[in-house]
Amino acid sequence: MSLAQPLSDVGKTMLTYINTLQMDICDSFLSFENKDSFYKDIWERPHHTGGGISCIFEDGSIFEKAGINISSISGSFSCDNEKTMFLKLLSQLNQDTINLNDATYFATGISLVCHPINPFIPTTHMNYRYFEIQDKDTLLWWFGGGADLTPYFLDEDLISNFHTCLKLPCDKLDLSYYPQFKEACDTYFYLPHRNEHRGVGGIFFDYLHSNTQDHYLDLVKSCGNSFLDSYLPFIEAHKNTAFTHDDIQWLQYRRGRYVEFNLLHDRGTKFGLQTNGRVESIFMSLPKRVIWTYNEKLLTNQHANLLKVITSPQSWV
Amino acid sequence: MSLAQPLSDVGKTMLTYINTLQMDICDSFLSFENKDSFYKDIWERPHHTGGGISCIFEDGSIFEKAGINISSISGSFSCDNEKTMFLKLLSQLNQDTINLNDATYFATGISLVCHPINPFIPTTHMNYRYFEIQDKDTLLWWFGGGADLTPYFLDEDLISNFHTCLKLPCDKLDLSYYPQFKEACDTYFYLPHRNEHRGVGGIFFDYLHSNTQDHYLDLVKSCGNSFLDSYLPFIEAHKNTAFTHDDIQWLQYRRGRYVEFNLLHDRGTKFGLQTNGRVESIFMSLPKRVIWTYNEKLLTNQHANLLKVITSPQSWV
Repeated sequence: MSLAQPLSDVGKTMLTYINTLQMDICDSFLSFENKDSFYKDIWERPHHTGGGISCIFEDGSIFEKAGINISSISGSFSCDNEKTMFLKLLSQLNQDTINLNDATYFATGISLVCHPINPFIPTTHMNYRYFEIQDKDTLLWWFGGGADLTPYFLDEDLISNFHTCLKLPCDKLDLSYYPQFKEACDTYFYLPHRNEHRGVGGIFFDYLHSNTQDHYLDLVKSCGNSFLDSYLPFIEAHKNTAFTHDDIQWLQYRRGRYVEFNLLHDRGTKFGLQTNGRVESIFMSLPKRVIWTYNEKLLTNQHANLLKVITSPQSWV
Repeated sequence: MSLAQPLSDVGKTMLTYINTLQMDICDSFLSFENKDSFYKDIWERPHHTGGGISCIFEDGSIFEKAGINISSISGSFSCDNEKTMFLKLLSQLNQDTINLNDATYFATGISLVCHPINPFIPTTHMNYRYFEIQDKDTLLWWFGGGADLTPYFLDEDLISNFHTCLKLPCDKLDLSYYPQFKEACDTYFYLPHRNEHRGVGGIFFDYLHSNTQDHYLDLVKSCGNSFLDSYLPFIEAHKNTAFTHDDIQWLQYRRGRYVEFNLLHDRGTKFGLQTNGRVESIFMSLPKRVIWTYNEKLLTNQHANLLKVITSPQSWV
């Protein structure tokens, strides 16, 4: 067994949940996707405890590249890089007094990125994660995560549905959550040098710990459970939408932005690389085919419509 | 005129030199490349003094994408980002006492990146730059630059020639230069998460200021003048080398590493983005077509041979 075991019962429930969610999503995708494009990779961390299960679709009928990964790792803070990264996290929790030299950690999460072939189906990303740090009798924990959508062409009804699917589970727990998480998502997924947001947003939260563990576990489970309802309608509606060579050029050009965000700004990528994470799993999020051209020109009104909503985030529900 | 004017005579000579070098290289490329693939873009910095001339080849017969850019900018240190970036540079020169609030700067350079179509012709990069900072009566200056080679398949004789073309001009000025700059190049162009160097190296130097301005101008000019001799033999030898679909896959997969280096590590890219540089010029260095696959497998002995020399730098002269 490559997955590290949690320190607490909530950690165990979270691990069981993401394992089930991963299987449910893969089963759903396999109901319409080529079996040959699917690849399941169970890996362990060399020299450390834990590992993960990466489920990959590549060059299927729907997905150019998609990854549904879970991982579960634990250990002590052996190297300076790891300590520095975790001290930054702890400062976000106002927990600067923990002594990492004697502490142990546990981290688990599910991470999904889907890059479809058809430019009329958006890229989507979803990630829910849970951290624990044990220092003697003190157990620190927090939840993070979210989901967001990166379209290449706008289907406003389905984008609204995507946001509604995330708003409903948030609203059930706290009416302040969705507006707060939606704004955090727009703020986080932003490329300053392009003056563009990564897409049409979704929800983003991190360092959640001021309520109970069960409360946030409920949040993460409800949001995770809404994924298929939020995303499958795009596949259903657009899997047969005709597209041109120019549409593919536009798709691949826009996917350059995805790479720029993930390599220049994404915290998860930075965290992974700086703690000697598994490169294949970290870069699973990168699209398969990408182009960068000099001075790409806007070709159509549809492209201009997309740029309008990603330069100036709007309300979708 | 979009190019900013230097503060010193050496600055003027450097600007004239890189202007001529840019024209010489473009003329040489245009002798064999499709005229239709060439595009010259003269640009100015919005709200600031200076600009540049970008010469781009895209989807030609030899180059998938190549850029030969010069730029020349000047100004005062108006924003905190700029000050922070330049203070970092000054600390490298042990010049921490300069007051940037009253100072003006001038920076000029030539930057070239060529990504050919044929996988048997390597990608190459060349950059020579000159900085001046004037604070009252004090003029600080330094030179930086280098050239390096990123092959996809090894042609050892031509790689040796590339290195020799850089070693000869260095040796004429100081026998310690080439070994020192070669090692700096191997150290700088390194991707820790891949445990790979970007290619087979070349030379790299920065913050050169302990000898005279004329000495380093001589170095930069001699190295710049050797560019065509170092690189054209690859084009001549391999422009008609047959390649397969798998070779192109390998090329595009390896070009992902180029993007990873430039977005995760390259100082020039970071400096450009953090000082609100011109995005199109900064990202001119990115290849046109790139792929990321999950767990790419080595296909041939030729691939393995490449990996051997980029994981463990060797002597080429």
